Amino acid sequence: MGWIGQPVLIEELVFKTQHGIVDQSLHSKLGAETTNGDGFGLGWYGTGEGPGLYRSISPAWSDPNLRELAAHVQSPLFLAHVRAAIGSPVQETNCHPFRKDDWLLVHNGYVADMHLIRRDLMMAIDPDHFADVQGSTDTEVLFYLALTNGLMEDPIAAMERTIGFIEATGRRHGRTGMVQGTFGISNGEDLWGIRYATEGAARSLFISTDADAMQRLYPDNARVTLLKPGDRLIVSEPVADLPGAWEEIPAHSAVVVHRGGELDHMPFEPLDVAVAA
Amino acid sequence: MGWIGQPVLIEELVFKTQHGIVDQSLHSKLGAETTNGDGFGLGWYGTGEGPGLYRSISPAWSDPNLRELAAHVQSPLFLAHVRAAIGSPVQETNCHPFRKDDWLLVHNGYVADMHLIRRDLMMAIDPDHFADVQGSTDTEVLFYLALTNGLMEDPIAAMERTIGFIEATGRRHGRTGMVQGTFGISNGEDLWGIRYATEGAARSLFISTDADAMQRLYPDNARVTLLKPGDRLIVSEPVADLPGAWEEIPAHSAVVVHRGGELDHMPFEPLDVAVAA
Amino acid sequence: MGWIGQPVLIEELVFKTQHGIVDQSLHSKLGAETTNGDGFGLGWYGTGEGPGLYRSISPAWSDPNLRELAAHVQSPLFLAHVRAAIGSPVQETNCHPFRKDDWLLVHNGYVADMHLIRRDLMMAIDPDHFADVQGSTDTEVLFYLALTNGLMEDPIAAMERTIGFIEATGRRHGRTGMVQGTFGISNGEDLWGIRYATEGAARSLFISTDADAMQRLYPDNARVTLLKPGDRLIVSEPVADLPGAWEEIPAHSAVVVHRGGELDHMPFEPLDVAVAA
Amino acid sequence: MGWIGQPVLIEELVFKTQHGIVDQSLHSKLGAETTNGDGFGLGWYGTGEGPGLYRSISPAWSDPNLRELAAHVQSPLFLAHVRAAIGSPVQETNCHPFRKDDWLLVHNGYVADMHLIRRDLMMAIDPDHFADVQGSTDTEVLFYLALTNGLMEDPIAAMERTIGFIEATGRRHGRTGMVQGTFGISNGEDLWGIRYATEGAARSLFISTDADAMQRLYPDNARVTLLKPGDRLIVSEPVADLPGAWEEIPAHSAVVVHRGGELDHMPFEPLDVAVAA
Repeated sequence: MGWIGQPVLIEELVFKTQHGIVDQSLHSKLGAETTNGDGFGLGWYGTGEGPGLYRSISPAWSDPNLRELAAHVQSPLFLAHVRAAIGSPVQETNCHPFRKDDWLLVHNGYVADMHLIRRDLMMAIDPDHFADVQGSTDTEVLFYLALTNGLMEDPIAAMERTIGFIEATGRRHGRTGMVQGTFGISNGEDLWGIRYATEGAARSLFISTDADAMQRLYPDNARVTLLKPGDRLIVSEPVADLPGAWEEIPAHSAVVVHRGGELDHMPFEPLDVAVAA
Repeated sequence: MGWIGQPVLIEELVFKTQHGIVDQSLHSKLGAETTNGDGFGLGWYGTGEGPGLYRSISPAWSDPNLRELAAHVQSPLFLAHVRAAIGSPVQETNCHPFRKDDWLLVHNGYVADMHLIRRDLMMAIDPDHFADVQGSTDTEVLFYLALTNGLMEDPIAAMERTIGFIEATGRRHGRTGMVQGTFGISNGEDLWGIRYATEGAARSLFISTDADAMQRLYPDNARVTLLKPGDRLIVSEPVADLPGAWEEIPAHSAVVVHRGGELDHMPFEPLDVAVAA
Repeated sequence: MGWIGQPVLIEELVFKTQHGIVDQSLHSKLGAETTNGDGFGLGWYGTGEGPGLYRSISPAWSDPNLRELAAHVQSPLFLAHVRAAIGSPVQETNCHPFRKDDWLLVHNGYVADMHLIRRDLMMAIDPDHFADVQGSTDTEVLFYLALTNGLMEDPIAAMERTIGFIEATGRRHGRTGMVQGTFGISNGEDLWGIRYATEGAARSLFISTDADAMQRLYPDNARVTLLKPGDRLIVSEPVADLPGAWEEIPAHSAVVVHRGGELDHMPFEPLDVAVAA
Repeated sequence: MGWIGQPVLIEELVFKTQHGIVDQSLHSKLGAETTNGDGFGLGWYGTGEGPGLYRSISPAWSDPNLRELAAHVQSPLFLAHVRAAIGSPVQETNCHPFRKDDWLLVHNGYVADMHLIRRDLMMAIDPDHFADVQGSTDTEVLFYLALTNGLMEDPIAAMERTIGFIEATGRRHGRTGMVQGTFGISNGEDLWGIRYATEGAARSLFISTDADAMQRLYPDNARVTLLKPGDRLIVSEPVADLPGAWEEIPAHSAVVVHRGGELDHMPFEPLDVAVAA
């Protein structure tokens, strides 16, 4: 989940929605793993230098520290993630978001066959960043590859190069279907969402309609009334049953919301690259 | 789950059954809470003085220390429990089993309206044991009441007095339906199972058929072949689909398996007592 | 530690002082237990309803979530506490601060012989609050007794009654020297510090000199220059070697700092009461 | 600490010695970091397949699960380690021992400048093992390099090649003093101890005298009386003040104790190798 817009108490969106990211961790209907209880992570902008990070291996539904933080921190831009571990240990350094300076990344999905390609991927990470890798997830490696590929200059291009490289590496090992999922990325000013799968159905991704349209559709909904222009929520699954309030982001595409509200859609197609730029 | 019989590697029964107590923590079909991810506890007899205890708030399916312990400890008698927290914090001291000297107790269920009756119940605990209460669950209080009522001399009678007292206390506060669930109790020599509910359907409880009968039914099943007379498994839900291998314990009744294999069934009816014996 | 005054990033005072509360958890010189590594707690006012709470059993020096929160949350009033467990389990519900509505309490010290008096103390807690006790520390029980004794109306009087009751209860059991330590209390507007011991040397407590005096003493100190009237820090041990900057609070006395800066000193003498008011 | 000999309850040596490894975690006198509270690890042989592993980030002195396991598990060969994190996160996958099949390794010390050389070291790990690295410590990388260098065939030679390679890699980056510390290694049959430092004073390492000699020196010591031929304890610091009972292992040397008691000393000198064998 990613929020950009007016400052809100984080709990309003993480705990107090009809179908919350935390509810979803128990009964995720559109998601692939039915119980996402292997950790929770939050990256939020607002006070202090760069984004703050809260990552815990306690299941989201029973973590008092998370509830407290969410109830007492306001933020105009944050990313939240519920983890279902696929093959790597449950530990805080394996929780998303991953962070470098002002940049955050979350990933709902996986990179397949990491056991075969992890070495190749890590060798392609900028040597100056190699020792920054602290955990053992696929996403952390992907994040450092993306940084190596210029995430901080042009995140979409960097991710296209990165995923292309991962797919090429997989093919070298005789594997396909390497990458699945949606990504949330931010630098504190803008919020990107990417929806992609190498093969098959890509995990879902939705963005909330602009405040105006939502208020015309639902003039009596108290929460919708509070929305301001520029407020956008990007989610794996809609957090409220409000038909017309959610725009599905097509597979192989991305969106970016800029601070102030400007919204762009663009295609997302990995580049076939054998070596990272 | 409770095992009594020949020493077995704990993992054989906790992790390596067709429908394990750990599997059940993800997809519990007969259970009331669909995801029991609020902690795991194990009490085992064998080596050292009295039973050992392992209690963790990590969900059972992702706890490496639990897997390691289960794979490297053999025990002729142990109790395992997966917790779904209902109203009290997720912390190790709120995990079952509860222990006093050689005695262990696990409880799959709840005591209702604890917020109303907790004070009354705790005041009835033997003053010498009062300060031993370390957590905030209903079951821990019930355990210390049972000790006060003579658990160590006659567990069934003690539990009948205890549950009767809890029900009487509830009625004083205008509540019914106070106690629900199944209990596993052991002293290192015998293993008791109790199935009871004040009102409505009691949670399920099964005991495995004796080794002889199981081997006649399933002569080609490798695991069944290894069974010896005296081996018994008491479970909330059958851990393998073997028709005829499981005997359902009726509600309002109890069983006890003695070291060596002798098995007794008895009724279980709480005594209407206003004050603990 | 307690801070009241202008909003500051929590890390400025928890991590970035010459002798910080976190440094002290490793090499506490004036403290009684040399390594306070059994948990950390933080209660802060500012955003959201009432104070937020962060309590963790990870030692303060190695908890990334604590560092992150402290670096990205600003607060005009907060209490921090490093725990050295004396006799009760290390669990989050045994970490300070304890909270009820807008009120927080931390305690650096102990109540002796809890095993003997816990039952008597808990029976004196307002029955409506009894089931709110979640952990097993002495301080949590003291907190609920103080609430029972009117903490929310007059904290000093309530603490005098409470400690007097604890001491009287101890004497009934043939014990003296029941209470030791310093207390920090707040309601989000005012900050109280109490220094007391039933017998012997009371743990230390200091309050920072007013901003004016400090700036005259240390005109070249960058941090001191940032101070404003009304800014006060109450600490167990001075966080910087600045002679003249710290006023020691005498044993058997208390201070209160009001929002806006007004400071009062008063004596603190427990009332000899057999039963809570 | 490493024990080889008759099966003993693990707690006898981890918790119940005059100066225990757990005591030492609070007041380590000969050690370099005064408080080793960043985790504890235990690897033990005996029951089940290969060694069991218990690794926890809870400080050793306050971990009930560790005490329980130690009090209820007997082992004829085990390694225990208390961690003081130097630069890498406190997480279970960063706790020692590290394990591969039947082999365990613990390290009391560090590899310097890992941020500079981590990439070079990881690239030298056998590509088939690369993705087994789960954490971010220096020791885990050293362990996988040692496996690559034939640890399972000849541990001393493999460690000489490994440390030589690390030192050569450091020199390539303009650094010296790369490796410091003592190592404990076992395969379930034999127990090796290595004492080494690239530069300066190597951390201490001691081995207990043979049972015979100890019983002649201390005929009235109850614990010493229980010793049998073949019992040996290898420790960073003596666990009891028994002059003559401890033989200091010289720096740049190693010992091995074989199941049955045979003891060998040998020199330990890293090979100057630019590339792993």
